[in-house]
Amino acid sequence: MSGIEIHHDDVSLDAPTLVEGLPGVGLVGKLATDHLAETFDMVHYADVHCEGLPPVATYQSGDHDLTTPVRLYADAERDLLALRSDVPVTPPAALEFAECLSAWADGDEVTPIYLSGIGRERDDGTTPGLYGIATGDADDSLAAVGIEAPDESGLVSGPTGALLSHAVRTGTTALGLIVESTPQFPDPRAAAHLLQSGIGPLLGVEIPVDELTDSAEEIRRAKRRLARQMQEAEETSSQARPLGMYQ
Amino acid sequence: MSGIEIHHDDVSLDAPTLVEGLPGVGLVGKLATDHLAETFDMVHYADVHCEGLPPVATYQSGDHDLTTPVRLYADAERDLLALRSDVPVTPPAALEFAECLSAWADGDEVTPIYLSGIGRERDDGTTPGLYGIATGDADDSLAAVGIEAPDESGLVSGPTGALLSHAVRTGTTALGLIVESTPQFPDPRAAAHLLQSGIGPLLGVEIPVDELTDSAEEIRRAKRRLARQMQEAEETSSQARPLGMYQ
Amino acid sequence: MSGIEIHHDDVSLDAPTLVEGLPGVGLVGKLATDHLAETFDMVHYADVHCEGLPPVATYQSGDHDLTTPVRLYADAERDLLALRSDVPVTPPAALEFAECLSAWADGDEVTPIYLSGIGRERDDGTTPGLYGIATGDADDSLAAVGIEAPDESGLVSGPTGALLSHAVRTGTTALGLIVESTPQFPDPRAAAHLLQSGIGPLLGVEIPVDELTDSAEEIRRAKRRLARQMQEAEETSSQARPLGMYQ
Amino acid sequence: MSGIEIHHDDVSLDAPTLVEGLPGVGLVGKLATDHLAETFDMVHYADVHCEGLPPVATYQSGDHDLTTPVRLYADAERDLLALRSDVPVTPPAALEFAECLSAWADGDEVTPIYLSGIGRERDDGTTPGLYGIATGDADDSLAAVGIEAPDESGLVSGPTGALLSHAVRTGTTALGLIVESTPQFPDPRAAAHLLQSGIGPLLGVEIPVDELTDSAEEIRRAKRRLARQMQEAEETSSQARPLGMYQ
Amino acid sequence: MSGIEIHHDDVSLDAPTLVEGLPGVGLVGKLATDHLAETFDMVHYADVHCEGLPPVATYQSGDHDLTTPVRLYADAERDLLALRSDVPVTPPAALEFAECLSAWADGDEVTPIYLSGIGRERDDGTTPGLYGIATGDADDSLAAVGIEAPDESGLVSGPTGALLSHAVRTGTTALGLIVESTPQFPDPRAAAHLLQSGIGPLLGVEIPVDELTDSAEEIRRAKRRLARQMQEAEETSSQARPLGMYQ
Repeated sequence: MSGIEIHHDDVSLDAPTLVEGLPGVGLVGKLATDHLAETFDMVHYADVHCEGLPPVATYQSGDHDLTTPVRLYADAERDLLALRSDVPVTPPAALEFAECLSAWADGDEVTPIYLSGIGRERDDGTTPGLYGIATGDADDSLAAVGIEAPDESGLVSGPTGALLSHAVRTGTTALGLIVESTPQFPDPRAAAHLLQSGIGPLLGVEIPVDELTDSAEEIRRAKRRLARQMQEAEETSSQARPLGMYQ
Repeated sequence: MSGIEIHHDDVSLDAPTLVEGLPGVGLVGKLATDHLAETFDMVHYADVHCEGLPPVATYQSGDHDLTTPVRLYADAERDLLALRSDVPVTPPAALEFAECLSAWADGDEVTPIYLSGIGRERDDGTTPGLYGIATGDADDSLAAVGIEAPDESGLVSGPTGALLSHAVRTGTTALGLIVESTPQFPDPRAAAHLLQSGIGPLLGVEIPVDELTDSAEEIRRAKRRLARQMQEAEETSSQARPLGMYQ
Repeated sequence: MSGIEIHHDDVSLDAPTLVEGLPGVGLVGKLATDHLAETFDMVHYADVHCEGLPPVATYQSGDHDLTTPVRLYADAERDLLALRSDVPVTPPAALEFAECLSAWADGDEVTPIYLSGIGRERDDGTTPGLYGIATGDADDSLAAVGIEAPDESGLVSGPTGALLSHAVRTGTTALGLIVESTPQFPDPRAAAHLLQSGIGPLLGVEIPVDELTDSAEEIRRAKRRLARQMQEAEETSSQARPLGMYQ
Repeated sequence: MSGIEIHHDDVSLDAPTLVEGLPGVGLVGKLATDHLAETFDMVHYADVHCEGLPPVATYQSGDHDLTTPVRLYADAERDLLALRSDVPVTPPAALEFAECLSAWADGDEVTPIYLSGIGRERDDGTTPGLYGIATGDADDSLAAVGIEAPDESGLVSGPTGALLSHAVRTGTTALGLIVESTPQFPDPRAAAHLLQSGIGPLLGVEIPVDELTDSAEEIRRAKRRLARQMQEAEETSSQARPLGMYQ
Repeated sequence: MSGIEIHHDDVSLDAPTLVEGLPGVGLVGKLATDHLAETFDMVHYADVHCEGLPPVATYQSGDHDLTTPVRLYADAERDLLALRSDVPVTPPAALEFAECLSAWADGDEVTPIYLSGIGRERDDGTTPGLYGIATGDADDSLAAVGIEAPDESGLVSGPTGALLSHAVRTGTTALGLIVESTPQFPDPRAAAHLLQSGIGPLLGVEIPVDELTDSAEEIRRAKRRLARQMQEAEETSSQARPLGMYQ
């Protein structure tokens, strides 16, 4: 039962782009990917069953149906996949996902865009820096839309680092976007910038982000609570927990 | 010797419902299930031997006979099973139980009702919220008796989360009930509400709960002591320990 | 080399009773079993080599010869075995001992009496409560000599709990005795009561216990020191250590 | 995918010398090796994929391309290899690298120079002590260029210790250089001395070190920050991080 | 490469005695064995490669050559082996050494003398107690030279305990010496007594110990520093370290 279990065989995708939204610094990847899935009304396309993911079940407001905590959403029109997670993911579980994804994509091509924050304080109203990284020939795509290379050397760690490391090791093509974000708190404005100046141009689509920037303070508060809760997701005492409003 | 060992081959069950009572938030699942087993005078039907369960032995007041700490009780008349535990159960041990249960039920059908609290303070006299979750087609059963879907998104963790996660992964049918309960202390009133408005309607039976609500304070005190003791159930120094009066 | 290594093939036992004295609450099991072995002048019958036992060597006062820290002593006349340990034993090591014992006893029958304290403060001069538990048909033996069932529900954990759990799982016959004992300190008086009102009647022999009750304070002090030392029995810096006088 | 993956088959090396720069006391090995690679304009020759290395991806300033955190650089003209790492390396991962290196070098001969600091405070302007150690016949090379043996007995631990231990065990030839360095902080002056009086003479080349000594304070500050960051290189929250200017 | 690697095939030994000097309480075994090797000018006979030994490399003052941290020294004239270690050894690594030793000795016989301190404060000028323990028939050797049995029961733990435990389990012949030593600090006087009244008589040789007793304070200070350093022998940051003067 380990692997990617597709629920919608009727969704047809052609060399899709995968936007990854695992929890990380400033929650920028998760905020951006969740927003993308909501905005484009993407369908719950597949469940992700990987070794190392916490054995929990997730439910949505107003719905009896249970789902896995890590899921793929799809938008057939835009040939787009979004990887969403309700739980923290360890690097080994991320590596296994990368293996699953390879096995599943196989003949077909999936180009992943991996997302990471880089902790940096910034003044109000300042645009956070945005940098592109890549494996294989994917640097051409970055150059084509004018996403700059990093202005200093660095490394990406955590689950996103594991996914990028997997791409380096296997020689597969992957894109990465790094956005400056406030290290301590969820940073919806950085996520909005990531969508508008990074993901949007790469996908060749306009992504409205007003909702993210207008309710930045509200989201920040709600997500901060969520972040705390996510750190306690595996214990011996069963309990249900709310996931916060921007799920 | 791992698996489910049946002691009463003479008990005949037909597509029974299994009510799960593993320890969790507010002890609501355990309180409800133990109460159910006492009230319906269910018989000790089977022992549960799973890897990961603590190697301890349990005894009942006034009886020399030793039993396993995790047991199934049966009520042939109502086609009912109750999963009771005298010890905390880890998510991996819960997963193994789910495997055992599948192997054992096999041809026959067992519909499980998994129980979880969700921590929320409430005023005296307020009825705690109760929500239903499900896998497969089980949401129909919830709708049929008017149990609402959760009013915000969330996740279930711990052993009950593992059981629900197993149902999601294997595509088997399972019901879940989430009741609001005080997070720090045992909450007999929440357990009573779970029985009256959740388990009772699903089973189509009346369940008297006066004993739970009348002695709420007493139960709460006794169980609080038990909860503390249960956290120390595996150590190198042998000892016997009382289990508290509502066993 | 794992297993039970017999040194005295000339000792002939017929369906013997095994009294277990692994360290536990109040040290009652160890105190009682050590006293039994001394009083009946039992011979060092076998060494116990089980995975999980600490790799240490034990010596006796006035003797050059080294022994294993866990040993079986025998009394052919009374068809009696005593399991003695100079070190703490983990539940997994106890389980392995139970496996060894089964393999070794095999055709022949060994009836074990497992011993556990249950922590309870008591006034000076009060007789501690004593309760019997059993698997298989062994409850008849308890009833025959008037040992009461526990007066409240409970569980036995630690190595003795593991041994009882093994008996429950495998459906083999075992007896257990639970005596109330002071939880913090060694309790020679509880051990004496265990011998006089529990082990003695079950074996059908008189066991003099004056030495235990007369020197209770002295033993308590000596054993308390021992108990502290036993908690440090596996480290990387070699050292020898005294075991205290009632070894 | 475990092993050494060569990117430049066109680089031809004949019995090359390998200078190892894994992080250690005073960062002397890393500072010296990174400086060597920059000064001689060595090319990124191979990626090192070993079990036990953190699954992270590294990027360079002004470049979109991602690389592995541990890499080999080559200088065909001087028959020189440099082992550079952006992350801390555990002894087991170092041992695996030694295995990979053996398998890879095979018929061809690679002579490694392993580098270690030895913590010792020194006054400003004092030249730090430098000592040579060796396995096989490599002590001749040390004597030939006048590098002294250690003036007191000692041991080398950490990843460099593991590499030297591997050479001792397998009976392969290896050189080691130990330089006195300030234990708490990066010590560019010790690294400069290591290059000028140790690595340079062994390689038979002049290595300009002005950059290291002139900017010692600046490097020290930058690297101290890096050292802190490197200790947190594996976590569940993804993030990108700068690597500091002397990468 | 695991096992005992002999460097001097020309050293001929006939049923040798092995004196073990692994670090332990009061460092008595190490002090005595190191002194023995220095005094009798024993040759570095073999390297010990066992799983579980820290992967570090050791060097001697004034010598470029690297060695393993655990080594055997030999004295062909006296048919003597000394086991010396520059690092702490865990009980599992000691057990593996015992296995290696058995495999290696095989047909030939090696009689080990294992050494342990037993912590006990004593007044200046008092002779520390010395006791002999044994497996197999080795107690005859102790009696023959008048080494007393312990005056109270006890156990030996740590690596020396593991070696003695291995001898008990396998039924092989081994001698042990226990000397009272100050628990907190290195105790050269206890080591001297161990050599003069224990090891010397058993070997039938005179061992001059003036150096140990005359420089007791100096050794104590130097070794205390060493003891501290030895506790940090495996880490991820490489470094060299002095081993102290009595290596």
